[in-house]
Amino acid sequence: MNTLQRIETILARALGDPEGGLTPPLLARAMNHAVSPGGARVRPRLCLATAAACGHGNMELAFAAASAIELLHCASLVHDDMPCFDNAATRRGRPSVHKVYGEPVALLAGDALIVLAFDLIGRAAARPGQGQKAGAVLRIVAQSVGAPFGIVAGQAWECEPKVDVAMYHRSKTGALFAGAAAAGAAAMGADPERWRPLGAKLGEAYQVADDIGDAVAERDELGKPAHQDEALGRPNAVRELGLDGALARLRSLAQAAVEAIPDCPGAADLQAIILGESKRLVPRSLAVRAA
Amino acid sequence: MNTLQRIETILARALGDPEGGLTPPLLARAMNHAVSPGGARVRPRLCLATAAACGHGNMELAFAAASAIELLHCASLVHDDMPCFDNAATRRGRPSVHKVYGEPVALLAGDALIVLAFDLIGRAAARPGQGQKAGAVLRIVAQSVGAPFGIVAGQAWECEPKVDVAMYHRSKTGALFAGAAAAGAAAMGADPERWRPLGAKLGEAYQVADDIGDAVAERDELGKPAHQDEALGRPNAVRELGLDGALARLRSLAQAAVEAIPDCPGAADLQAIILGESKRLVPRSLAVRAA
Repeated sequence: MNTLQRIETILARALGDPEGGLTPPLLARAMNHAVSPGGARVRPRLCLATAAACGHGNMELAFAAASAIELLHCASLVHDDMPCFDNAATRRGRPSVHKVYGEPVALLAGDALIVLAFDLIGRAAARPGQGQKAGAVLRIVAQSVGAPFGIVAGQAWECEPKVDVAMYHRSKTGALFAGAAAAGAAAMGADPERWRPLGAKLGEAYQVADDIGDAVAERDELGKPAHQDEALGRPNAVRELGLDGALARLRSLAQAAVEAIPDCPGAADLQAIILGESKRLVPRSLAVRAA
Repeated sequence: MNTLQRIETILARALGDPEGGLTPPLLARAMNHAVSPGGARVRPRLCLATAAACGHGNMELAFAAASAIELLHCASLVHDDMPCFDNAATRRGRPSVHKVYGEPVALLAGDALIVLAFDLIGRAAARPGQGQKAGAVLRIVAQSVGAPFGIVAGQAWECEPKVDVAMYHRSKTGALFAGAAAAGAAAMGADPERWRPLGAKLGEAYQVADDIGDAVAERDELGKPAHQDEALGRPNAVRELGLDGALARLRSLAQAAVEAIPDCPGAADLQAIILGESKRLVPRSLAVRAA
């Protein structure tokens, strides 16, 4: 089973059968809808690539962290799509959770996914000899989601009359990428702080790519509404730098991410993954222009 | 410093200064508004009373669990009060969080409180020798909040066309009480399952007391809107059993809770706490009738 398949298996097992369990049926279906079929699972893959680059020990805690991070990401999408935020009718090419299940169930599905994420780390912590390391991983993950610097805080900057734009981007997207890299390292007993810059640069790259997609792509290409930043008055790299400027920034951030890889046995593999990803990030309609 | 003061100190420290930190200011204020000044802090007190009854070891993990449980309870109140659920304008005698800070910030404040709760347990887990026990505590807490049996699932039963009423009550109120007692025991290395029935009975008692309050109290007495169950078509013990029947049920549940206390050094203290609480639960306007 490859890495991505194993993540999908952990997520599916954690969520359980949406039709056959003891969870209220609408909640169970909404949680599954939010998580599967997923996107590129970029954050858990980053977490696991970091863990693999750090050593060859037991990867169980790293998989728990990676899956928890993906659940937290999915939870944030469910809540961000709700009418009081983006009011987005589509996500990953399908109706968003609240469009299918209504606002109350969507709100609860997000909550339940956050709880489930931490439960996955708790399961790892409860195993003999893993507790203290799992505690460190849990703290990294919690800080990359909550206040003051996590994705929830990033989203909250959108509600402020005066926005700290750097803090907004660092929290809203960067935090969970930096946390994914740091958690992968911590799960293997490596120093998490050495890995944060790599995650942060990748997070910035994804934010710029997302901005480019929002500004230029057609809806069918994104699987979610396009031109939302302009409609909602949010900062966007294309508005700030122009399209060519934003594409150049994306390339330079991918390069910076590669340079931020700490010395480690798996550095070459990690470099190949990052450069491959940075090509995938450019919308198909711009691939020629970017080359 | 007594138990309650120590809980307040942990909560205040975890939340940080709402005016001076790095959290987006509205989010920081909303999180504080949701937690302080609090209610009776019944769940953390139950958690700590259970822990104290189980032994005289280091109580740090028990305090972390108790504080986490209170944060999760507060988060659930913020989300339950929102327009897509109860649309409650007041809570604890003050405007509810979304009334003061708006829906987006209220939604995020709930999310951030859930994350902060697990971070508190993560801090305890990261200490030498505490990790595995903290992992067990985390799992108990997560299961009493998430799906299928926690308070989020309980709330989700309200969204189903066909409600399993027993499951609804057990999850919506009972789960976090049972979890509080079980987590207090697990934090001291005692068997959590022996303590669940006590918590569950107390949870039922609080639900009946809440139903009585909703049915008969005036708004100023509750600090939140009265007569909501009738308005929202929710199950309520007074509607099912009549007022005297509901009062009798409250007394019998308090007695059942006392009888569910496992053999332990602190049993007598715990019994006195429970009987005292069960008197406090009856609205003042009914105290004569109940006596």
